[in-house]
Amino acid sequence: MSHDSSQLAACPGSDVFPILDEMAFFNHAGVAPISGPAADALAQYAARAASHAYVDSGWYRRVREVKRAAATLINARGEHEIAFVPNTTAGLAQVVYGLNWQRGDNVVITNVEYPANRYPWQDIQQRLGVDLIEVPQQPDGRIDVDDVLDAITDRTRVVSLSHVQFASGHRIDLKPISDTLHQLPSGRGYLCVDAIQSVGVLPVDVQAMGIDFLSADGHKWMLGPEGCGIFYCHEDLAPLLRPTIVGWMCMVDAQNFGDYRFELLPDARRFEPGSYNIPGIYALGASIDLLLETGIDKVWARIESLTARLCERLPEKGYRVFSPRDHADERSGIVIFEPTDDAKPPLPQIVTQLQQQGIVIALREGRLRASPHYYNRLEQIDRLIDALP
Amino acid sequence: MSHDSSQLAACPGSDVFPILDEMAFFNHAGVAPISGPAADALAQYAARAASHAYVDSGWYRRVREVKRAAATLINARGEHEIAFVPNTTAGLAQVVYGLNWQRGDNVVITNVEYPANRYPWQDIQQRLGVDLIEVPQQPDGRIDVDDVLDAITDRTRVVSLSHVQFASGHRIDLKPISDTLHQLPSGRGYLCVDAIQSVGVLPVDVQAMGIDFLSADGHKWMLGPEGCGIFYCHEDLAPLLRPTIVGWMCMVDAQNFGDYRFELLPDARRFEPGSYNIPGIYALGASIDLLLETGIDKVWARIESLTARLCERLPEKGYRVFSPRDHADERSGIVIFEPTDDAKPPLPQIVTQLQQQGIVIALREGRLRASPHYYNRLEQIDRLIDALP
Repeated sequence: MSHDSSQLAACPGSDVFPILDEMAFFNHAGVAPISGPAADALAQYAARAASHAYVDSGWYRRVREVKRAAATLINARGEHEIAFVPNTTAGLAQVVYGLNWQRGDNVVITNVEYPANRYPWQDIQQRLGVDLIEVPQQPDGRIDVDDVLDAITDRTRVVSLSHVQFASGHRIDLKPISDTLHQLPSGRGYLCVDAIQSVGVLPVDVQAMGIDFLSADGHKWMLGPEGCGIFYCHEDLAPLLRPTIVGWMCMVDAQNFGDYRFELLPDARRFEPGSYNIPGIYALGASIDLLLETGIDKVWARIESLTARLCERLPEKGYRVFSPRDHADERSGIVIFEPTDDAKPPLPQIVTQLQQQGIVIALREGRLRASPHYYNRLEQIDRLIDALP
Repeated sequence: MSHDSSQLAACPGSDVFPILDEMAFFNHAGVAPISGPAADALAQYAARAASHAYVDSGWYRRVREVKRAAATLINARGEHEIAFVPNTTAGLAQVVYGLNWQRGDNVVITNVEYPANRYPWQDIQQRLGVDLIEVPQQPDGRIDVDDVLDAITDRTRVVSLSHVQFASGHRIDLKPISDTLHQLPSGRGYLCVDAIQSVGVLPVDVQAMGIDFLSADGHKWMLGPEGCGIFYCHEDLAPLLRPTIVGWMCMVDAQNFGDYRFELLPDARRFEPGSYNIPGIYALGASIDLLLETGIDKVWARIESLTARLCERLPEKGYRVFSPRDHADERSGIVIFEPTDDAKPPLPQIVTQLQQQGIVIALREGRLRASPHYYNRLEQIDRLIDALP
């Protein structure tokens, strides 16, 4: 083994995951456990909401703190660029339904997007005559940046991509794409990123990467519960996006219930039409705080080390790694792999057998997927290898 | 006092509200406490999600159970008529943005709706040329049913009303309105109800009342947390409504991630584009179960008795009741009142003074509002009366 003792040691802050006592969980790309602090935050919210309702709760102060923490996590310019959304779909929808489309505008996506980043574009293709351009995944699992750049035309309004693909684990280099979009003569090209498989895993920097819009659910790598995600909108672009749903809370004078002045808030709050998911925000906030305390660089270094061990050892048991991993900057927390021979049991059976031994991986698009987080132990990776048929 | 001992006794099941030990809380029309069972459900969800993630969680089975309970609460035809929404706004939006509008169609609302039932209509008024017809509230706080019926024209697509008005407490008789709408020659008239101030308070029967669409947040009378509400859509009408947001989960073949067949689910599930708010649904479900166990008739009888006591005693302290209450069928859980003389402190000061004594009421549209729930005690009402300046 090439791993030294510092890699074998658990990451600081990673001792607050109750799931470590129960199983070897490697499906953070699916639905993750919530962290111990997130569970505590939920339980505390619950006790307080039952005994005091909103009275002296500080809920809205906390909502703003969590927005600032989320902004820090992706290096947004501030809380004014962050809206809470019920799920990734709702964040992407702000872009899909919010831009002022012209017939003949086009959107560039890939042919392997998670359906959340596909159906809504199909919807406006049908309704508004927007063209949908599909960049195909390469046989080796890569999305070639040059293919994306070649697909961009003068009429491209949006390139909408997963930062990390759910079924290959491939991470794409976003900067050349945003550079090209931002230099279009139209001045109307934007980069929209489904970051559900990258935020909380690895450093995401919306400014350095030139990301205009970003959506990410909380229930995967951010270790929050289902039902609460974030939508980032570049501060210059919020006024251009008509909110998908106009409600009472997104107005300048929201607290004045009897005055119906129709003036949308100028920043990301315009994407929050109605009451906040307070328990969801409390739980998500606790997990984001934990990730920030640990440091996302450390989190990523640890995930890299765990996934490297897994990839190194898979061939021992007759599996090949599908995820593109030759270059450090295309790796992610997702390792897709498959048997090299036909003697193995069917894949669903493998997943079930492992789960019976307390080892959780997933089956996606005909291959196996393991997605460890920073708190997993190296010995858990070895357990997975040992248990694979 | 005219109240007999059976009215003085607490309602069965009402002993599970931790807030009873802390304060006399009368703002259920604002943001309510969650019930003890809801707090327990949240804490149990939290512990389980931290220790086992989704593994053997039964989450989706529970989602369906809670849908069935919500359907029972409003006498819908089944779970297929219920969608979970992040808030009332998002439910109303399904109707606002989902119907196939023609320029010149009109919508009838009132001039005193909570902004959640106003801004989205203004939005499509601006964008789609839909006419907005406002029925004015009468000086006595009533919305006259005849005024609503008179406002309906052949081009009326929707009458969108609060079942109970937030700033008057007036409950409107919905049946004559739905009857008129359903008899329009166009065959395209629908009744959309913001039921946030009635579901959980009093019997709501979507079938008997002829309601086509209904939205209600969970964090008021249903005693759930903020961030999880219900949207009801008549089974015959779901296919007519294009979902506000098309996502991955609202498709027939949602679990087949790599197949992009664009076929919307035929029932209310089409209004659920992405991941569920699982903790919210757990908490809301526990409170709905509690209300159903108690029985909504008993809940309402109790609220009627509490509000009757309040209204009976307010004049003792120099306050008059604004809420229309002459007829039993126009009453609700909301009592709006105001001083009869100028010698009283300013209203915000009254609210603050009461809160310092552990008594919570609200200020809405220039008047005081008390909204007790079934678990409140008669002696708490007396405490409020005694504490009023």
